[in-house]
Amino acid sequence: MINWKNLDELASYGELQKTERVNLAEVMSGESGAQRVKTCSIPMAEGLSYNYAAKAVDGKVIDALVKLADEAQLTEKYKALYNGEVINTGEKRLVLHQLTRGQLGDTVVADGVDKRAFYVEQQKRIADFANKVHAGEITNEKGERFTTAVQIGIGGSDLGPRAMYIALENWAKKTGNFKMEAKFISNVDPDDAAAVLASTDVAHAIFILVSKSGTTLETLTNQSFVMDALKKQGLDPAKHMIAVTSETSPLAKSKDYLDAFYMDDYIGGRYSSTSAVGGAVLSLAFGPEVFADFLEGAAAEDKLATEEDPRKNAAMLDALIGVYERNVLGLPATAVLPYSQALSRFPAHLQQLDMESNGKSVNRFGEPVSYVTGPIIFGEPGTNGQHSFYQLLHQGKTIIPLQFVGFRNSQIGTDVEIQGSTSQQKLCANVAAQIVAFACGKKDENRNKNFEGGRPSSIIIGDQLNPKTLGALLAHFENKVMFQGFLWNVNSFDQEGVQLGKVLAKRVLAHDTEGALSVYSDLLNI
Amino acid sequence: MINWKNLDELASYGELQKTERVNLAEVMSGESGAQRVKTCSIPMAEGLSYNYAAKAVDGKVIDALVKLADEAQLTEKYKALYNGEVINTGEKRLVLHQLTRGQLGDTVVADGVDKRAFYVEQQKRIADFANKVHAGEITNEKGERFTTAVQIGIGGSDLGPRAMYIALENWAKKTGNFKMEAKFISNVDPDDAAAVLASTDVAHAIFILVSKSGTTLETLTNQSFVMDALKKQGLDPAKHMIAVTSETSPLAKSKDYLDAFYMDDYIGGRYSSTSAVGGAVLSLAFGPEVFADFLEGAAAEDKLATEEDPRKNAAMLDALIGVYERNVLGLPATAVLPYSQALSRFPAHLQQLDMESNGKSVNRFGEPVSYVTGPIIFGEPGTNGQHSFYQLLHQGKTIIPLQFVGFRNSQIGTDVEIQGSTSQQKLCANVAAQIVAFACGKKDENRNKNFEGGRPSSIIIGDQLNPKTLGALLAHFENKVMFQGFLWNVNSFDQEGVQLGKVLAKRVLAHDTEGALSVYSDLLNI
Repeated sequence: MINWKNLDELASYGELQKTERVNLAEVMSGESGAQRVKTCSIPMAEGLSYNYAAKAVDGKVIDALVKLADEAQLTEKYKALYNGEVINTGEKRLVLHQLTRGQLGDTVVADGVDKRAFYVEQQKRIADFANKVHAGEITNEKGERFTTAVQIGIGGSDLGPRAMYIALENWAKKTGNFKMEAKFISNVDPDDAAAVLASTDVAHAIFILVSKSGTTLETLTNQSFVMDALKKQGLDPAKHMIAVTSETSPLAKSKDYLDAFYMDDYIGGRYSSTSAVGGAVLSLAFGPEVFADFLEGAAAEDKLATEEDPRKNAAMLDALIGVYERNVLGLPATAVLPYSQALSRFPAHLQQLDMESNGKSVNRFGEPVSYVTGPIIFGEPGTNGQHSFYQLLHQGKTIIPLQFVGFRNSQIGTDVEIQGSTSQQKLCANVAAQIVAFACGKKDENRNKNFEGGRPSSIIIGDQLNPKTLGALLAHFENKVMFQGFLWNVNSFDQEGVQLGKVLAKRVLAHDTEGALSVYSDLLNI
Repeated sequence: MINWKNLDELASYGELQKTERVNLAEVMSGESGAQRVKTCSIPMAEGLSYNYAAKAVDGKVIDALVKLADEAQLTEKYKALYNGEVINTGEKRLVLHQLTRGQLGDTVVADGVDKRAFYVEQQKRIADFANKVHAGEITNEKGERFTTAVQIGIGGSDLGPRAMYIALENWAKKTGNFKMEAKFISNVDPDDAAAVLASTDVAHAIFILVSKSGTTLETLTNQSFVMDALKKQGLDPAKHMIAVTSETSPLAKSKDYLDAFYMDDYIGGRYSSTSAVGGAVLSLAFGPEVFADFLEGAAAEDKLATEEDPRKNAAMLDALIGVYERNVLGLPATAVLPYSQALSRFPAHLQQLDMESNGKSVNRFGEPVSYVTGPIIFGEPGTNGQHSFYQLLHQGKTIIPLQFVGFRNSQIGTDVEIQGSTSQQKLCANVAAQIVAFACGKKDENRNKNFEGGRPSSIIIGDQLNPKTLGALLAHFENKVMFQGFLWNVNSFDQEGVQLGKVLAKRVLAHDTEGALSVYSDLLNI
């Protein structure tokens, strides 16, 4: 029997608040620090590990977090989710993104079908389609091969797939898995579509229109933009376009598309990279096998997240420590800092995943909560960030928890040795150095050169960023966000906060405005 | 006589704290809201305007801010800065980035030279060089024209120039000002340089090595990476590379470069887009006239920032309201939200500009301050962000002030009309709608669909993003950050917080580690 209780109704949360604060600079110094780094580590899937040595926690805090996980029934709630309960209470929907990559529990039947079978069927249909494109069996009207895939989508139909594409592009080129370039059109700013089209050989491009509802303003507008460009070149848009949508959308089974692949209402946009939303573009770009490996990594990580003991469950412990930092220590943000240029857009994806899921003020029953919920998420790849906003992270007045990611090996493998070390070694040396600098600081009599330390971080370490580790990494954060939503007792799977702006924008375009909105419209010449 | 006092030593700050809070949702509703939007506007340079109607301020708060500006001597401090006083107290340096684009006050002599004349000379030398490259007078060894410029730099030598290049690329292509593509290598991750080089015709590429000190680890490493690639193709690196550095750096007057252009210690990296750091790459990409226009826009905005009355000085009022939000209302972050795909990396540049400048815990004399300083800065272009993190902005527990930017016209001009409006109109309608949605909210009995409102924003509105308006926009934010630094009494022009990580990274590479650092090094196989 699951109890959906607010965080501050849990006795263990009260106990957590009473635990003694940990002096991070102290415990991370000397031999104690070395021991922490060795022991505060949880194996993840695909050889990754989550190391939380540099978090401001000790045995007592961890014990309290374990109790909290138990009282908040995190494992039971996850189980309810993957077994098909209506976890998205706002929209009264199941939450099934894990099912796109594996069957963790019971058969889930919805709308009269086995949903796992449905997702697998779509993956097979996409794989067949992509294989035919790669084999030159599906071509443009002249019988010429498609050379570029262009995704038209916004939000979850853009950020996740784009981040995953960038993450694997160089790996695919290096390993012979690169099939075709992918590009992305998202913004309703006409300069976005115009610039992408200007640099694209549209006669050999296949466009992927992605909209679950089939009604997203930006995406339909950009579809028209693309159709115009195709027609101007004497091309038939219907021969250059596929759709990824829900079976009930106006885009489904339309003659305007070469083919259509389906997702459903149980996959939120920000959780859709492992559904057909990511599947079509990634399978076209890298081949279906690469996409299958990506799903395999995610599935393996999902499985590990079923572990009841947070000490052995990286996503769950990450979530718990995050709540401790947000609600007990009162810290407003988390910086995501991957030491991998290939993950350059991964922070932007996590920004949506986390802030759209848990940026809420009411619990899952629509009642206001009296504690803070999701933090601000931002980040850039290292070492670049070191030469940018790290100044504030090191010496600013507000402590910001940090989430590092690092890999022992690069993707391309080309490197150069300068001053006795390779670039890859310099990259890894920097992330190691930063963790310790943030945690321990360094006293200096010149207060301007003094580092207080005590700035917590964790790191996920792997051998290399590849489809499997990327899948595991993605699932880790999805599951972390899910567990945090359970702890805060919010619905992490709706986004009512995006509606009001849509309504008002429509009124502006219909010239049905008054007051401030009317004057802003005038100022912007609408 | 200037008094450098901490914010909390100012009587007017005490008065500001006592002002009554403004109910933003209320004042922005109905006719009162319309009046605010009409009147709360300050003209900026190049036809831009700063509209602060949707900020939670009223006449009393503004009066208190005016007093604060006066007591904090913002205008006098700015004057001292551009007249060449040692404003960067930590490093004992002048702060002269405004002088790269105009002479606001006295002749500034340092190191025995007229610094304005020095910066102008470098601009002329760059213009001559770029013109010769474009005319085919400076070529590769085979006498073939260079077709790509590749900037090698990190931090301020990357983020600003890269953001400016992206901001003007489509405008330049549309207006016939596009001379050559620019690319950027920044990260020490070897996959960054390898991927850029793999997509570049290096035989026809000119590389711009940018490092003020000539000692930046990442940049020198990437230089070697590039030199390797050139040599492997049988090319002479010295015929493909120019340097932008200080005259005292090891890179100056070296035979390893075709030519070298100079900046100096009085231009901080994050303030260097208008110096040779931005000048070389932007002049090569778009021609010296475009770069000159960019400087002209910045100079015009710098001039407006000399206005003593904050009610007529956009940068100063923006700074003052920001301090009110940060220190009196206690808000931790600011989101930068340009409704322009061309400004996609502008928030990343502002993130460095702001967080590296004012992310400090000590005042300019090295004494700890007891109030919060620089906020977290993050952002993505709209409308993309609306489908991502705006959920938290609208309905999250933490209020985050917003900085919108919008233009009436697109850069490329290609557009499509759907449902009675163009994409550009939809873009503008969305930004207008968001401002009102954030400010006014909307009551709903379903608490999950309820919007509290009261979320403050400002907007900078212009006709079009072009070199002049971009220059004005950049200068606005540089001056805002400068004024905020004066208010917080911090040194906005050093960055001691980046040093400790560098020192520890060197120790890792030298295998001179112990404790936690040693174990992290092992885990990362260094």
